[in-house]
Amino acid sequence: MKLASYTKDGTPGFGIVTEGGILPLDGRLDGIATLQELIEKDALGKAQAVTGDALLDPADVTYAIPVDRPEKIWCIGVNYGNRNAEYKDGSDLPKYPSLFVRSRQSFVGHDAPLERPRVSEQLDYEGEIALVIGKGGRDIPRETALDHIFGLTICNEGTVRDWLRHGKFNVTQGKNFDRSGAIGPWIVTADELDPGAELSLQTRVNGEVRQKDTTANLMFPFDFLISYLSTFATLSPGDIIVTGTPTGAGVRFDPPIWLKPGDVVEVEVPGIGTLSNGVADQETGHA
Amino acid sequence: MKLASYTKDGTPGFGIVTEGGILPLDGRLDGIATLQELIEKDALGKAQAVTGDALLDPADVTYAIPVDRPEKIWCIGVNYGNRNAEYKDGSDLPKYPSLFVRSRQSFVGHDAPLERPRVSEQLDYEGEIALVIGKGGRDIPRETALDHIFGLTICNEGTVRDWLRHGKFNVTQGKNFDRSGAIGPWIVTADELDPGAELSLQTRVNGEVRQKDTTANLMFPFDFLISYLSTFATLSPGDIIVTGTPTGAGVRFDPPIWLKPGDVVEVEVPGIGTLSNGVADQETGHA
Repeated sequence: MKLASYTKDGTPGFGIVTEGGILPLDGRLDGIATLQELIEKDALGKAQAVTGDALLDPADVTYAIPVDRPEKIWCIGVNYGNRNAEYKDGSDLPKYPSLFVRSRQSFVGHDAPLERPRVSEQLDYEGEIALVIGKGGRDIPRETALDHIFGLTICNEGTVRDWLRHGKFNVTQGKNFDRSGAIGPWIVTADELDPGAELSLQTRVNGEVRQKDTTANLMFPFDFLISYLSTFATLSPGDIIVTGTPTGAGVRFDPPIWLKPGDVVEVEVPGIGTLSNGVADQETGHA
Repeated sequence: MKLASYTKDGTPGFGIVTEGGILPLDGRLDGIATLQELIEKDALGKAQAVTGDALLDPADVTYAIPVDRPEKIWCIGVNYGNRNAEYKDGSDLPKYPSLFVRSRQSFVGHDAPLERPRVSEQLDYEGEIALVIGKGGRDIPRETALDHIFGLTICNEGTVRDWLRHGKFNVTQGKNFDRSGAIGPWIVTADELDPGAELSLQTRVNGEVRQKDTTANLMFPFDFLISYLSTFATLSPGDIIVTGTPTGAGVRFDPPIWLKPGDVVEVEVPGIGTLSNGVADQETGHA
């Protein structure tokens, strides 16, 4: 099942994405007003029982990030096997994953423009697969870790490169510009797409393939990530784990190729769909 | 005015901390159920108008972190002038602050025990002053930045040292262990304690002074931090900025001195109060 969050005529809603359109679930599940609450209340079964033929035309909705208020958004750095070599620092393969945190507001939904900030021209894409946690927990063993995945979605983990190393020890700044990344278009539930199977990922800019890899090359696979993160933090329903990007981001070209207004970035994961976002300049006067 | 969040007999509440006890505000302000909502709705004036003599005995409440669901908790690294030298890596003074993010669940309230995790003996304290944002905004000029502070609180930015450099580029893991730090005991509003004045800070472990410094030594003062952060991220009401720790954490001793069950850590900031927390071992079987 594909589940999306969106606004329609300014009102938030969520529903099941089908071939013929979106079947709204808001107002049809007792005590569940958002997709986040559906996950928290383990109510996928209730959603599956909803039927109807009053489908919304996807063209009439504005997609939001699928979980409206995730407790945590964990992001894994340098996870595809050939990524470590890109740094050309002679370092061995890492023993543990690199990890950073992004704020919810650093992401937009499907079809909304990524924002190139006033203070930098170095907006870059990073196509990634993201896990949405269903059942939470601490000290989750690797053997049962995949059972904690509610579903899978796609992330463009957009990055402002020249703000990435402002700090001595962390990449926080360059990873947390407002509206610099995207999550969506929807969540595909784990009963429909097996998180343990090999998944492929492709990122295109204006139709040109820039990133292409499969999860067979992950140094730290999904089950490891869930078990590892839960060693120090209780995972909560709706938490998002963004699992790392393949080689081929714009910064790796010589000279680097940055995103600019008018570009279209697509991240495609067969079995999930395609996350597509344009690029626009930051409007001044945000508040 | 001092404002605290707490639970009493298992029910969340918030109120004004006075000499004689706590004056509850929950249920007494229309449409405002939490301190976070009071901040979001800019309702300090309404709180100031509440009177009453049915005060709670502080001994009867369990303090929570003052803002129950901050959108973002930003933490500044290496901010007191003499801290950079502690790294002994010959690096120049940084041009920008080091920045990382902590989850809300990595903190407990005043008087609750910090948790020494099963996987490490290296739990360490870091006493810090924390800002609570009132009016949000993006691209906030330094000149008016202090106007965006709702109030000040105290943070023990507890750290699990051997998990700090697990990753290649970030300190996320060692900063995000469940219940490894504390925030509280309450917020002192900016009309009572001027965030632009020099503030002093002292950390004691079992009564022994370990950290002692004043904000006169900050490399990146509060107004700079607010302006800088808002360059990339819209600040939201209730956001917390933890502003860095002085020299003297346990890791800097030779040999290092880690926190152990039974220790008591106090962080005192005159004008705010004292944040006090014991230390206990992680109980197994969190879920």
